[in-house]
Amino acid sequence: MTGSTDWEDFFSATPVPTELERVEKEASDFVRYHLSRGKPVALVSSGGTAIPIELNTVRFIDNFSSGQRGSASTEYLLQEGYAVIFLHRKQSKYPFTRRVDQETFLQAFLADANSSRVTVREGFASQLHTVLQEYQNCNASCSLLSVPFLYLSDYLWYLRTLAHVLSPLKKQALLYLAAAVSDFYIPKDKMPEHKVQSDGGPLKLELQLVPKMLKPLVCLWCPEAYIVSFKLETDISLLSKKAKEALLKYKHNVVIGNLLQTRKESVIMVKQDEEINIQISHEEQSKGIEIEQKIIAVVKSWHSEYMNL
Amino acid sequence: MTGSTDWEDFFSATPVPTELERVEKEASDFVRYHLSRGKPVALVSSGGTAIPIELNTVRFIDNFSSGQRGSASTEYLLQEGYAVIFLHRKQSKYPFTRRVDQETFLQAFLADANSSRVTVREGFASQLHTVLQEYQNCNASCSLLSVPFLYLSDYLWYLRTLAHVLSPLKKQALLYLAAAVSDFYIPKDKMPEHKVQSDGGPLKLELQLVPKMLKPLVCLWCPEAYIVSFKLETDISLLSKKAKEALLKYKHNVVIGNLLQTRKESVIMVKQDEEINIQISHEEQSKGIEIEQKIIAVVKSWHSEYMNL
Repeated sequence: MTGSTDWEDFFSATPVPTELERVEKEASDFVRYHLSRGKPVALVSSGGTAIPIELNTVRFIDNFSSGQRGSASTEYLLQEGYAVIFLHRKQSKYPFTRRVDQETFLQAFLADANSSRVTVREGFASQLHTVLQEYQNCNASCSLLSVPFLYLSDYLWYLRTLAHVLSPLKKQALLYLAAAVSDFYIPKDKMPEHKVQSDGGPLKLELQLVPKMLKPLVCLWCPEAYIVSFKLETDISLLSKKAKEALLKYKHNVVIGNLLQTRKESVIMVKQDEEINIQISHEEQSKGIEIEQKIIAVVKSWHSEYMNL
Repeated sequence: MTGSTDWEDFFSATPVPTELERVEKEASDFVRYHLSRGKPVALVSSGGTAIPIELNTVRFIDNFSSGQRGSASTEYLLQEGYAVIFLHRKQSKYPFTRRVDQETFLQAFLADANSSRVTVREGFASQLHTVLQEYQNCNASCSLLSVPFLYLSDYLWYLRTLAHVLSPLKKQALLYLAAAVSDFYIPKDKMPEHKVQSDGGPLKLELQLVPKMLKPLVCLWCPEAYIVSFKLETDISLLSKKAKEALLKYKHNVVIGNLLQTRKESVIMVKQDEEINIQISHEEQSKGIEIEQKIIAVVKSWHSEYMNL
């Protein structure tokens, strides 16, 4: 007999997302469809997780993340022949639409004053055409499944459920965990019910550690999958050391380490027997090349080796 | 001689946003242009303010706000003949584009497979046409100025500067403060430099009170403007009382009170001699009528009375 673990305690104390059953059903159908066609499936997590401070939540703690890494990587995984379950923070960057600027994209269109016709302005059509073709290809092959979340608790429930759903794919499953997941949270029984009033003086918060979910993910939920995790640091002296420690501790396949300040130009990719640097020059950036394209090329090649072992 | 106040101390300890000078110049030009045409100008604040926990910010505290109230109200203010400076949280809802769903709007277009032509699909054109016409009218009259922020400190610097810029409009200026502004923050000298490590155990945070900026706003920065503030509560028993207290304390013009749970269907609008309820029925909602349309109709009428005093 073993006692319950910290992650089991976390799930027993945390309500199930109302959409979980529907998401599980959709994801199972998705995996079955692609499994029957021999297509590898990736679960990409993306964006930050929110931690409520009050039960009726007005305030929350968030992790800095636009969703750039996850949404861009999803596009390159699709190009490399994966089907992708995109587990993402609501309103964070989304594959394809991320390339259309939210505040200004309406400038690309012209509404005819005398009819209900809408036309695409000269100069915008070719850029939009490129995005649309990729988007339409992706839709035609049913290769992208969208699963949005807001709070940490929902994210973790979805992660566990989707990992279970992917496990029949065995080595063909790729988990690419780019979400910026909070290390801390306030348990439900420690939260005030209502919005904390500002006339009570300074606010003291005490946050508990979130159990490390990589452990059950690797050992139990999806044990044969190829698992890539991320480490974001702000202190370069810690980066390589922390990435290697994580790999030793959780025994998964790859840690991608990046610094907040340089994450768009430089990452390290660490696996058991190798550490490589991936960089992108200013010249490449000015041509619109993204570092995620290079990262995914390496991930695909390493995952292919692993599948053939 | 008077000593320095808490809000003066806050600004002396808080770095000026790098874009402040450019924003001030653009806003001054904007106000001068509309002043010369006799058009009233509104400053609308919208979305939540982020509070960094670390100097190299990976984590922050945020206020729940999609920017719905501010972005929708901006559209109705434009319809009512105002020019609007839209001071908003980056990536929060934006006027006009908010009506186009981020994840799915690419479905509205079709990329021709054999040319670079892009067409709008049947069934999407009429909805897009309506949005575009309003957007194009707004652009043609140069009636919307966009000022984005992320952090509380930037928001407060912009608020002060824009209030100064609006003050020559006297009673024609409307301040509509719909942003969800944090009551608490961590001063720069109390923040750790790097990302807080999770191996240090539970995280304790102590947050200081943000000085109430309504006081200098009403007394000093823009003393003749018509000023509308918001109160969001989660406890209905506090709502009306808190709204009236705010009005007595800051001596501005209107407090709009709303509950987190019902904010899309019901608000109270409180001024010195009157308190009214604004509600929207399910039937109205199903027709696409938004509560912000009703709120802005009342704000306009009250502001007009005030201008004629």
